[in-house]
Amino acid sequence: MTQPSDTSLSRLFDPHSIAIVGASATPGKIGAMPITLLQQHGYGGRIIPVNPRADIIAGLPALPGLDALDDAVDLVILAVPAAHAAQALERARPGQVGAAVVFTSGFSETGADGAAQQERLCIIARERGIRLLGPNCLGFMNVRRNVYATFSPAPANGVVAPGGIGMVSQSGAFGAYAYSMARERGLGLSHWISTGNEADIDVADCIEWLARDADTRVIMAYMEGCRDGAKLRRALAAARMADKPVVVTKIGRTQAGAQAAASHTAALAGDDAVYDALFRQYGALRARTIDEFFNLGYALDTWQRPPQGRRLGIVTISGGVGALMADEAADIGLALPEPAADTQARLLQRVPFASGRNPVDVTGQAVSEPGLLLATADDMLAEGRYDALAVFLAAAGSSEALWPTFEAFAQQMQARHPDVPLAISALFPPARRRELERQGCLVFPDPSAAIRTIGAVAGLGAEPTPCEVDTSPATTAAGALPLLDTYNEVQAMELLREAGLPAMPCVLAVDADAAVRAAAGLDAPCVLKVVSPDITHKSDVGGVKLNVRSESAIRDAHADILASARQHRPDARIDGVLVAPMAPKGVECIAGVHCDPVFGPVVMFGLGGVFVEVLKDVSFRLAPFGREEALAMIREIKGYALLQGARGARPCDIGALADALASLSRFAHARRADFSSVEINPLLALPEGQGAVALDAVVIRDSSRG
Amino acid sequence: MTQPSDTSLSRLFDPHSIAIVGASATPGKIGAMPITLLQQHGYGGRIIPVNPRADIIAGLPALPGLDALDDAVDLVILAVPAAHAAQALERARPGQVGAAVVFTSGFSETGADGAAQQERLCIIARERGIRLLGPNCLGFMNVRRNVYATFSPAPANGVVAPGGIGMVSQSGAFGAYAYSMARERGLGLSHWISTGNEADIDVADCIEWLARDADTRVIMAYMEGCRDGAKLRRALAAARMADKPVVVTKIGRTQAGAQAAASHTAALAGDDAVYDALFRQYGALRARTIDEFFNLGYALDTWQRPPQGRRLGIVTISGGVGALMADEAADIGLALPEPAADTQARLLQRVPFASGRNPVDVTGQAVSEPGLLLATADDMLAEGRYDALAVFLAAAGSSEALWPTFEAFAQQMQARHPDVPLAISALFPPARRRELERQGCLVFPDPSAAIRTIGAVAGLGAEPTPCEVDTSPATTAAGALPLLDTYNEVQAMELLREAGLPAMPCVLAVDADAAVRAAAGLDAPCVLKVVSPDITHKSDVGGVKLNVRSESAIRDAHADILASARQHRPDARIDGVLVAPMAPKGVECIAGVHCDPVFGPVVMFGLGGVFVEVLKDVSFRLAPFGREEALAMIREIKGYALLQGARGARPCDIGALADALASLSRFAHARRADFSSVEINPLLALPEGQGAVALDAVVIRDSSRG
Repeated sequence: MTQPSDTSLSRLFDPHSIAIVGASATPGKIGAMPITLLQQHGYGGRIIPVNPRADIIAGLPALPGLDALDDAVDLVILAVPAAHAAQALERARPGQVGAAVVFTSGFSETGADGAAQQERLCIIARERGIRLLGPNCLGFMNVRRNVYATFSPAPANGVVAPGGIGMVSQSGAFGAYAYSMARERGLGLSHWISTGNEADIDVADCIEWLARDADTRVIMAYMEGCRDGAKLRRALAAARMADKPVVVTKIGRTQAGAQAAASHTAALAGDDAVYDALFRQYGALRARTIDEFFNLGYALDTWQRPPQGRRLGIVTISGGVGALMADEAADIGLALPEPAADTQARLLQRVPFASGRNPVDVTGQAVSEPGLLLATADDMLAEGRYDALAVFLAAAGSSEALWPTFEAFAQQMQARHPDVPLAISALFPPARRRELERQGCLVFPDPSAAIRTIGAVAGLGAEPTPCEVDTSPATTAAGALPLLDTYNEVQAMELLREAGLPAMPCVLAVDADAAVRAAAGLDAPCVLKVVSPDITHKSDVGGVKLNVRSESAIRDAHADILASARQHRPDARIDGVLVAPMAPKGVECIAGVHCDPVFGPVVMFGLGGVFVEVLKDVSFRLAPFGREEALAMIREIKGYALLQGARGARPCDIGALADALASLSRFAHARRADFSSVEINPLLALPEGQGAVALDAVVIRDSSRG
Repeated sequence: MTQPSDTSLSRLFDPHSIAIVGASATPGKIGAMPITLLQQHGYGGRIIPVNPRADIIAGLPALPGLDALDDAVDLVILAVPAAHAAQALERARPGQVGAAVVFTSGFSETGADGAAQQERLCIIARERGIRLLGPNCLGFMNVRRNVYATFSPAPANGVVAPGGIGMVSQSGAFGAYAYSMARERGLGLSHWISTGNEADIDVADCIEWLARDADTRVIMAYMEGCRDGAKLRRALAAARMADKPVVVTKIGRTQAGAQAAASHTAALAGDDAVYDALFRQYGALRARTIDEFFNLGYALDTWQRPPQGRRLGIVTISGGVGALMADEAADIGLALPEPAADTQARLLQRVPFASGRNPVDVTGQAVSEPGLLLATADDMLAEGRYDALAVFLAAAGSSEALWPTFEAFAQQMQARHPDVPLAISALFPPARRRELERQGCLVFPDPSAAIRTIGAVAGLGAEPTPCEVDTSPATTAAGALPLLDTYNEVQAMELLREAGLPAMPCVLAVDADAAVRAAAGLDAPCVLKVVSPDITHKSDVGGVKLNVRSESAIRDAHADILASARQHRPDARIDGVLVAPMAPKGVECIAGVHCDPVFGPVVMFGLGGVFVEVLKDVSFRLAPFGREEALAMIREIKGYALLQGARGARPCDIGALADALASLSRFAHARRADFSSVEINPLLALPEGQGAVALDAVVIRDSSRG
């Protein structure tokens, strides 16, 4: 089912001819709606109604079936009952049809019989080289080329403007709603696509195609699940490389939502934290609500380019609302640098009761003194201190008398500071709002929404970090250590060392003499631990002795450990006793890898103790990743301050921690065929300059291999 | 300045006569605007222009000054420069004028000179029994009685409908914006008030007055700071007792916001966490954004009564958006109980591919089958399982053909289930939306906003918990322990015991013999600690010995402690050594009291260790409070799971913890004149049924008393 998507999908989304199987002359029927829309909006290609019971439909000659058509046809719309869909497609010759959109429901969403019917449809399509959109979908529109391959009633209530947003939705109902919202909010679309059951083409295919489509600048996607994680990663990477921001709403964030999602869609819901990691990693913006989805799309569509960094300037005519905006900015980590001293002085000279700091409060004076707003903002931006500017004008936006001032302000800002995107919060009449938007200026009635939106897209305007997709095949048993059924702690630590991770040196002593020799080699107080593939919680069986120094103490500890372990777990296989130096002082962290069924190895990081166990304060990334991504995942946890040296302690070696995580991710990715889970607990973060060290690890083989 | 607010403020907000000092015939002047508005909107009372340089203004005879008026006048509007305001008011006879609104700026907001002028104005007003609104304010409107004592341009762009919302804003710019937003969103107002510099009347006065005003059902307040905490508490309590919800936006949530607020207003910004505690405690709903402010006001105004509990039913025509709504509901702690089994069965019989669980997905079938929506919702609500219902209709709201279905749905739901408030999320044309709102149904384009709004007001429809304001005078030195300059640990623990808190028994031993006697009385392993008013961190000076058992060990420990303390801190006054039983195992908590300059004693609660020190995971309440409030503040912390018995531990005695906090709050309140700070660290939470116990405490006298 993996075909080169660019060419085959272009025949689908930009067709020169469209055949409608099940074409109807009855208005409102799903076989009539696309023909009506295509004719109404002046589709420039050929329209071919197919219906054995009619000669002419909508003024066009109708054919009895695809086999009656001599020419090739780019797109076939199937608007016939599920039982007839496969038959209809069967009548096409191999190579004749580029793609088919299947409107009708009654396939996999209805159970086993429907799934079988869907599978049959897929086989027929594949044999004939036909790409499939749907079934059980609302179809798609290519807004710029007037392709309306849909039976959604949404365009009947008014069409959206052509524009740079490519919109794709797994759900038809959401898609129709989103189309209507785009129209209400004045967003321009290039394409609107609903993917339905995704028998062949899924949301990822569409994202990848839109990333390559010249008409699309921004991609907005709604998804409920994903079956092919690698494809979604490729698609998001393609969008990032093409510098096209992706705004995505993925349902099922919470358990309640995931439960609801599972009852709704057959697609694997996946672990939501993994989706979160995926979107962060590939720079896609996840929107939690439909409002946020559209605010982000609106900003990315309206602005020539998103802000290049996170430094925000605020200008307000109300000090109080300025403070409200500062609250929001602080919440989402936007910086509010102060204007230059002379900028502040000039403002205070002009308006003594103004506030020259950021938020800059020009006071109500801006209403009676037309040039004040522009002069102040211009002055603020002169030195490149800000990446974006947010302006609050309160109710003054409704004033017709003040309109020329505001219009000139937006024009001049765009002309003089094209690199500093502008958002105005005020109540403008709709026509005025649209005029400002044409100047590239965002308008939000709610100032907090303006700030939140800026915060979400800030930095996207900078050069994108390359995010390659590592498609190298899994390597197996490449190291010195052969593949084993199970790994004891010493072997697990050896694997980590092979993987380039800093693992505490340790020796497996098979008897007391060996333990004494091992300890002598360390020349430091030791820790002794029982080593057994059957004992995970060593302390619970008296299997750990700390701070052992003398030879006699080592012999005692060795004997005690074996006795205690045998007493608690008589059946456990005991490989020996591990001898290692006592660990230095540091902050206990946990790093782990688990294998997500959709996305493969996922790396987890967190602090030990209550942070992981009570607060679930962990971050995730999909393997493999580099140092920068590892640093981001470390900074993401709530307890990060502890690593920075809270409570008077020295800061930890965060760089070494990041290197360890990156190494772990590369190992997990390369050896994904061999290992399904790794847990390093604790991974000790030492003071700055001293590195990090893994003290214990559990490695589990791919469970399917036993 | 504290006068009985109800009668004097009624002359202000519902005046039978209004004199405008500085009346003008020039359109747009601040002395002309109120006259124009009053005449335009048919104000029923007497309008008296005052201006020595005119005989007739706006068709009305003008007087040269207030002294030329024989009659009493309820309200005087001062629209003259700051320098003339006091003079103008001086010409009024005592008792003649009820209240004055001072539009003009140039008072305390400009510095010391202005502050002096404002103080003079206050003195003159007080001498004559005149209440003051402003100065430096936009005035107010009584929308139902057509009183426009304002020069805000907002009403000129269209007036708001009369309704049940009383709106008060410290900031004029915010107020004008809020007025315009209320108009745009179709909210009905009873009053609109801007308080400006608050020389006399502040936001709290207005809340209290609106709480007693028969025209007002809901109060919306915007504040930047507060100088009189007790008054604000009284006002919020009055609103709660009157069953009138208060929605409040208070700026300065974050440090950036508080900084901006401080540069803007002279009012004490206060500690924002304390405001948060205040609003929670008095049941006021704090809105973080202007959108939220209006969503809450809209819901409380439109619904007859807010939901009585937190059980939400969701009906959707899109399973995916249903999941999105479930995500939001889970985030804010709304419960989603499932419908009865036969309700589910009936739906599935009718629509086999529907989902009968909550969110209930009736699928797109609801569009083609008009009765399905009503039948399903009706069935769901039949058994009283839900406190509110949220419905998502996607783009179907735009369909004229479907309007009768939706209209009938809203009507029938209101008629059959008047106690279950309804919110519909869909894109309706404005007129349709207003029609649904008239049926008492909320309409939100964004389904998540609908859920969030329901979550914020859910439970407000239940009987309000009484929240009394304790105005008893501070008691002083009521207990056995006399007031001391400083309190050592033993004395601090004694104070806690007096306050009714469970404090670990302890004895101050003045010598080794006394320590041995004290330990003998305990019959358990002991802890010994140095007691000195000069040593706070006892462990740091070797001043603590744990788990001491035998007599000789006690003597050794006693000697070691004194020697070590004297070595580390030769100048410290040493009162002796404390002997106490070793503490049982429990979860370490911290409880504290500090004195807020505006609100008095504030109690803090948190878990020990990283929770307080790294995560700042603490909750606050204003003293005094009872057990229920204490339980709420315990449940509020993020680490609450640890008290519930995370990590396999037994649950803690949370009730005992709550009792301890309530006792601490009553003590802190009653002895507020004596003590400025108490810290109990650790307050040990023992397993359920075993109580809680304070192990150490620091009490600090009111610093102003030395």
